[in-house]
This record gives sequence, structure tokens and C-alpha cells, in this order.
Amino acid sequence: MKTLVLLTLFFIGNTLFAQTNEQSKHQIRFVLDQQVAGWNSGNIDSFMTGYEQFDSLRFASGGTITYGWKNMLLRYKKSYPTKEKMGTLTFGEITIDLISSDAALAFGKWTLKRSTDAPWGLFTVLFKYKNGEWRIIHDHTSSGN
Amino acid sequence: MKTLVLLTLFFIGNTLFAQTNEQSKHQIRFVLDQQVAGWNSGNIDSFMTGYEQFDSLRFASGGTITYGWKNMLLRYKKSYPTKEKMGTLTFGEITIDLISSDAALAFGKWTLKRSTDAPWGLFTVLFKYKNGEWRIIHDHTSSGN
Repeated sequence: MKTLVLLTLFFIGNTLFAQTNEQSKHQIRFVLDQQVAGWNSGNIDSFMTGYEQFDSLRFASGGTITYGWKNMLLRYKKSYPTKEKMGTLTFGEITIDLISSDAALAFGKWTLKRSTDAPWGLFTVLFKYKNGEWRIIHDHTSSGN
Repeated sequence: MKTLVLLTLFFIGNTLFAQTNEQSKHQIRFVLDQQVAGWNSGNIDSFMTGYEQFDSLRFASGGTITYGWKNMLLRYKKSYPTKEKMGTLTFGEITIDLISSDAALAFGKWTLKRSTDAPWGLFTVLFKYKNGEWRIIHDHTSSGN
């Protein structure tokens, strides 16, 4: 009986999950695209809507860890005070792996084209699905330069 | 009726999950500790048992991506040919977040003490539970130096 219940749970779970896989990936991709669009219009607040607005948001960059949405916003605004500093952002070679029905890992390459340089690197972000929206709760970024 | 089934699934799922949370974290922590022990005994093969032995294993370090367990092993053996180069590894400030019953994200700081230098940085690793074992399937490492 217990086995039957578990098997039923497994198949129902799988069916529900399979139905939303592609939809989830599209929604996550949309969030990433919106971030890039926000950044490239010089709007860091718009870029930041891709992140969950909570204190446990974790952003690891090189050897620096920033906790909390507000601190991350301030860090970005300090590091990129002008549109020239922000440059033109591109996300490339993006892979989205769904981990469960409400979690996904996105991995890709970021490039910033600026008048004087072109920093680039890799990013790993963990997305969580909450209240009908996919948002980043953990970001690990490294530099390739 | 559909709501009742979903609610039942939800509660059964939660109960099953809650029972294994702490156990899962302990097992993941054990894998990380074993990696450190393997590294510090000069045994890269032992360190590598923490990773899932499959071609989709992804290791991002700075701006370099390595795919596949064997390639990652070769990369480590090439970068750390001697025990002196390997130095003494420490993982610190480790956070393990369970994402689902078979997935977890571990985040922390790595430090390598060597006779001539002490490189350090941060790591984000995605663990998957398969065949009774927790193994890393994605690793993003960045340098703080």
C-alpha cells in the first residue's frame, strides 16, 4: 500500500513537473533577458528586479559576498555610477537546468562592452519560483579577465 | 477532490522531506570533509570522489569551463602536480541549502595554504542525490586574490 502511494505520488509529480518544464525555462530566460534590457537602458533598479527582494539574497563575486537585496543594489549603484561605466551587457551560452518544480540553476557567460575595456566572466544563479514568479536567490559571478 | 489529493501530496511530501533534511545536510557535509581530507593527503582521485562521474559535470573556475569528470581530474592533476603545489585545503563558512529532497546548494570559502602563497576564494556547488549518494554535479569557483 505504501509503495503504491509512493508510486502514485511519483507519477503524479512527474506529470505535473513535465507539463511546466518548458514554460519554466521560458520564464527564467525572460527574467534574464529583462535584466539585460534593464542594464542596457542604464536602469540598475530594473536589472535588480530579477533578484528576490529579501535579506537572504546572496551575491558572491570573486572573493566578496554581499547579503540582501538592498545591499546588492547599493553595491551595483556604487560600482556602476554612470551609463558609460555600465556599458553594454550580454549574457551568452546560457544553460538552464531545472532542479525541481520550483528551483532552477542558470549558468552562462557575461560580457560588458565599454568604451575603454570589455570585462567578462561566468555566472551561476539559483532561481526559485515563488508567488508565480522566478527570481534569483543566489548569484556566484567570476571574472575571466 | 483534486484539491484534497494535492493537499495530501503536499503534506506527505513535506513530512518525508522534513525527516531527511538534517540527515542530508550531514551527508553533504561529510562529502565535503572527505574531499578536504583526500586533498590534504595529496590524493586528487580521492578529492574527486565528491563529484559525480559523468560527462555533464560542469566546473567553472574564473573564466574557464571544464566539462566531464575525467577532464576535471586531468585539469586538477596538471594544475597541482605535487603535494607542495596542493598545499593544505580548508573549506570554511559553509552553508548548505536543501533545494529539494534530492538537490542542495553548498556555498563556502576555500583556502589553500602553501609554503609560498595562500590563494583563497569562494565556491558554489550543486549537489544531487542519486543511488543513495550526494555528489557534486556543478561547481563554480572564484578567486579572492
